[in-house]
Formats: sequence, C-alpha cells, structure tokens
Amino acid sequence: MLTNQVVMDVGSTKANILRIVKGHPKSGRYVATHPMAGTEFSGPDAAIVNLYRDKNVILCDVEKSDDDALGLVKNVYKSIGMKILYMESKAHDIHAAYVSHISHISSFALSLTVLDKEKERKNILDMASGGFESTVRLAKSAASMWMPIFMLNDENVLDVMNNYIGKLQQFRDAISNKDEGEITRLIEESNKIKKVLDRKEEPVLIESAYDR
Amino acid sequence: MLTNQVVMDVGSTKANILRIVKGHPKSGRYVATHPMAGTEFSGPDAAIVNLYRDKNVILCDVEKSDDDALGLVKNVYKSIGMKILYMESKAHDIHAAYVSHISHISSFALSLTVLDKEKERKNILDMASGGFESTVRLAKSAASMWMPIFMLNDENVLDVMNNYIGKLQQFRDAISNKDEGEITRLIEESNKIKKVLDRKEEPVLIESAYDR
Repeated sequence: MLTNQVVMDVGSTKANILRIVKGHPKSGRYVATHPMAGTEFSGPDAAIVNLYRDKNVILCDVEKSDDDALGLVKNVYKSIGMKILYMESKAHDIHAAYVSHISHISSFALSLTVLDKEKERKNILDMASGGFESTVRLAKSAASMWMPIFMLNDENVLDVMNNYIGKLQQFRDAISNKDEGEITRLIEESNKIKKVLDRKEEPVLIESAYDR
Repeated sequence: MLTNQVVMDVGSTKANILRIVKGHPKSGRYVATHPMAGTEFSGPDAAIVNLYRDKNVILCDVEKSDDDALGLVKNVYKSIGMKILYMESKAHDIHAAYVSHISHISSFALSLTVLDKEKERKNILDMASGGFESTVRLAKSAASMWMPIFMLNDENVLDVMNNYIGKLQQFRDAISNKDEGEITRLIEESNKIKKVLDRKEEPVLIESAYDR
C-alpha cells in the first residue's frame, strides 16, 4: 500500500472540506489550496497558456499537512510561477466571499436585470460598450461550479450580500432624494478601490516568512 | 452673425437636455448624440488611439435637427469609424440606465462592500484575481461625470436599481434556503447573456435604414 500519496485540493471554499478531512486517519496527506486564477469559461477549450504565472495561490491550514506532502504541492505551484500565500481556512472563506463570490453574484444579477428588460425592448445591446461587458462577464460562469460554492460558503456569502444590498439601497435613497452631495460621497468613497488595486501590484514575498 | 454653427452633444442622457433645447429659437442647430465608447478614466491622459473605431454612436430625435447640422455630425462620426444608430431620446435613456448606468452603480457598490471589509481584515486583496478586477473596474469612474448622469436619469435608474436589488434578493433567498435548484436556475438564466453578447458581434447596418 502506498504511503506517499498526496491529495491536492484546488477548490474555492476551504473550511467545510477541512472539517471533513480532519477525521480521516491519513488527513496529513491532504493539502488545501486555492489558486487565484481562471476565467468565466470551463473545460479543455478554456485552457490558457501561463494562466498561473505570477498569480497568487492560497495554502490553508498548512500545519495540518505532512511536511513532504506540503513540500510537493509547493514545488508544483512554484514550478508554474505562482506566488504562495498562507491563510487560515475560515479567514480564506470570508475573504473569498468578499472578493470572488460576490463579484459573481453581482454579475449574475446584472445579467438577469438586463435580460428582463430585453424582453420588452429591442436594441438594448446596441448600447453595450466595454463597461457593461466587463461588469457582466462573470455571468457566463457555469452553475455546476458556482452553485456548490454558494452552498458551501453560504454564511459568508449571505453576510456579503446583505452588505452589498445595503450599499445599493444607500445609492437608491441618495438618487431618490436627489441628494447630489450623498451621491458624490458614495462614488468618491468607492473610488478608493483604485489605491487598493494598485497596491496589489507591489512585489510581496510572503512565501519566505512562513517557509518550512 | 453666424448661421451655420452646430452644437454636438455627446453626453450620456438625452431626454432632459432635449426638453430644454426645444424652446430655443435655434434648436435645429443642436444634434443629440451618445457615442458608446470610453473607459473608467478621465482627462487627456486617458486618451486611447482609435477609441471610437467600430463602436456604436446613438443619434437621438434626429428629426428635430436641421439637415445640414445632422449631416455634419454624421460625417464626423463616420470619419472616425463609428456605426450610427438612431433612437428616440426617452428610449435611449431607458436603455442607457439598463446597460450602462446600472453597471456603474453595481461596481461602485461592490467597491464599497469590499472596502468595508478591508477595514476589518488585511490580505483581502491578495485574493483579487481577474474576476474581481473586471467587475469592480468601473468603480474608478469619476463622480463629476456620474453624479449628474444619475441625477438627470433618476427615474429610469431607480427602476433598474429596484429590479437589480430584487434579483439579488432572489439569490439571497435561494442561498439562505439552501435551494440548490433555484440557485442553479438563476445562474443558468443569467448565462443567457452569452447569446446576447455574441449577437452584438454580427455586422448590422442600421445606418442605411434611416439615412437622410
């Protein structure tokens, strides 16, 4: 019987599966990872050369994996040019809900809204410029991938959705009240995402801090 | 006194300004247009070579413009490679709310939600992959441009926002009820945007039908 097998998980939620793995006698052979790369397309036709290069991969709860199993997985990711970061699994799932999962729900809902209207009126898509296309792009994503993600990360996703719906209601109230100052304040507050996205470009060698 | 001046409007809402222009003795010199091109950036540094090539421009209520004024504006757009479409101004504003304006509000609100969370926890942007960036991109857009658009198109924007918030609530309820079938149904319904976006690629010569 082989003793050096490694199970490398690359899914989008982590706390749930780690809870299940915990009770297994060979749980040390399991390594929980989440490569932050991909597109809205699935299957072999969606393959992209160098998709993973210079992208981040999150490794979760690494202290629960055997040293050799973790070492193998890290070498795989390093060999395809990924930057390795470490995170506690519950924190991972919260962050994923805020950064990745809500982006998808936002796009799915936007698509549903526009499709509702398109039934009534033609020509609407003659007006779709780059802004609409980039915002709605994720709505092409497969239900077979995203339904289970929303099911497994439901608590965090519901938290984020409530926050998101609250922000939309603030916008709606500001527009409804014709409150120019409040509309401007909300937009300028949201503009601060620029700084956060730019900061992401700085080279960070988080790998070395946790190396083992 | 010059009689051949032309006022070419390139703003994002049309019904309001056309109502104001209507009473002017020289309203025939005014041509209402909306080029569907641009990025989230403003000012001279944001210039892009061939931004307008093969993009659509909407001309509104052209029967209210003098023939020579309209002809001049059409030649300007044709000379930079734009495809000319015609629309009634009120219809334009409804379509713009559904396709362009809601995309921006969706991005502004997404940014506000993620920034809320970032105050509590660091590292969140290590997880921002391409999906988040494309969905939140429009949140870099200037308040000086978008506040007036939301003010001038408030009724249509509020309609769309109510529809959008309703779709998000459907998603929230489906996840909250752990209703796998309903989550799948909503995602697959939203996937239909693929067909609409692909249809946009077909060459359409709407220009000729209305040419004058």
